[in-house]
Amino acid sequence: SPVEKISHPVRFNRTPSAPCCRRRSSLLRPHGLRVSRDFAPRRFVRHIASSTNEEAAARTAAATADTGGPTIFDKIIAKEIPSSIVYEDEKVLAFRDINPQAPVHVLVIPKLRDGLTGLDKAEPRHAEILGQLLYAAKVVAEKEGVADGFRVVINNGAEGCQSVYHLHVHVLGGRQMKWPPG
Amino acid sequence: SPVEKISHPVRFNRTPSAPCCRRRSSLLRPHGLRVSRDFAPRRFVRHIASSTNEEAAARTAAATADTGGPTIFDKIIAKEIPSSIVYEDEKVLAFRDINPQAPVHVLVIPKLRDGLTGLDKAEPRHAEILGQLLYAAKVVAEKEGVADGFRVVINNGAEGCQSVYHLHVHVLGGRQMKWPPG
Repeated sequence: SPVEKISHPVRFNRTPSAPCCRRRSSLLRPHGLRVSRDFAPRRFVRHIASSTNEEAAARTAAATADTGGPTIFDKIIAKEIPSSIVYEDEKVLAFRDINPQAPVHVLVIPKLRDGLTGLDKAEPRHAEILGQLLYAAKVVAEKEGVADGFRVVINNGAEGCQSVYHLHVHVLGGRQMKWPPG
Repeated sequence: SPVEKISHPVRFNRTPSAPCCRRRSSLLRPHGLRVSRDFAPRRFVRHIASSTNEEAAARTAAATADTGGPTIFDKIIAKEIPSSIVYEDEKVLAFRDINPQAPVHVLVIPKLRDGLTGLDKAEPRHAEILGQLLYAAKVVAEKEGVADGFRVVINNGAEGCQSVYHLHVHVLGGRQMKWPPG
């Protein structure tokens, strides 16, 4: 269990670079998980625990996911799965990440994937939607009250920690972000 | 010294969330620093050491930097300061980060800042250059041979760990990126 791990600091020291990505199945969990700013030890344990579980999940996703098939985001866009929507316009949808890594953690996605399973699939014609996504990320940061301090992240592929193959922009804020960025 | 720190694992365990940003002065160091993939302990020490020094530097930058004044990037764009350029076109310039956090670590910037000290300053008219920056990030990942696994990061403000107030997109790859993203 995570508690057991924390009692073995040596073991923890030996695993600083364990990669970890959000499990795809975590998107199905109920909303409302929030990272506490006041309870760092517990948050830290949670990260350790998830990095162990999620490494395997990320590999599985990479092996099967970039095929252009439907993703969980299609159902979120169609509102067949409820999400906590922060911003929406004709082209983009922004909703809270179900497994937030900061007090504010929102995903901004194009409503029409148009081949953009990941950023690596971008062609010159996609520059317009890419700009709209980044502009929406700024709007989201403003709406969430973190415009003066936030981080935008796009993961691509297994080594980038991408877990859903529909291009998405993470907007994180509400705590001090660290360096390196994962 | 960093070596002393590694001999006190307990102290290390107590500082997991120390924020750290690149020092502005680090941009003046000579090029060629590369994160070794084979020498993890040293890399790890380096991160610990820099997080301590750089927290104060980030606060200083935040207090004085978002004034729209010139930045180090103006001199890089003007080629008054040499940089290792990876990609360049009419609108954007991409060059290697002087303090890389992964085997591939490139910054993509607009040649004309046009008010974009940070992403929070974006207005609808900036959507075009924002799209060009993200598309260039993909081109950079391809050129660097990491198109199948990379991470794109934009820092905004002190809590986002922004250290130069000229909008820039980090492209990181060549190692497994972790979660959370800093």
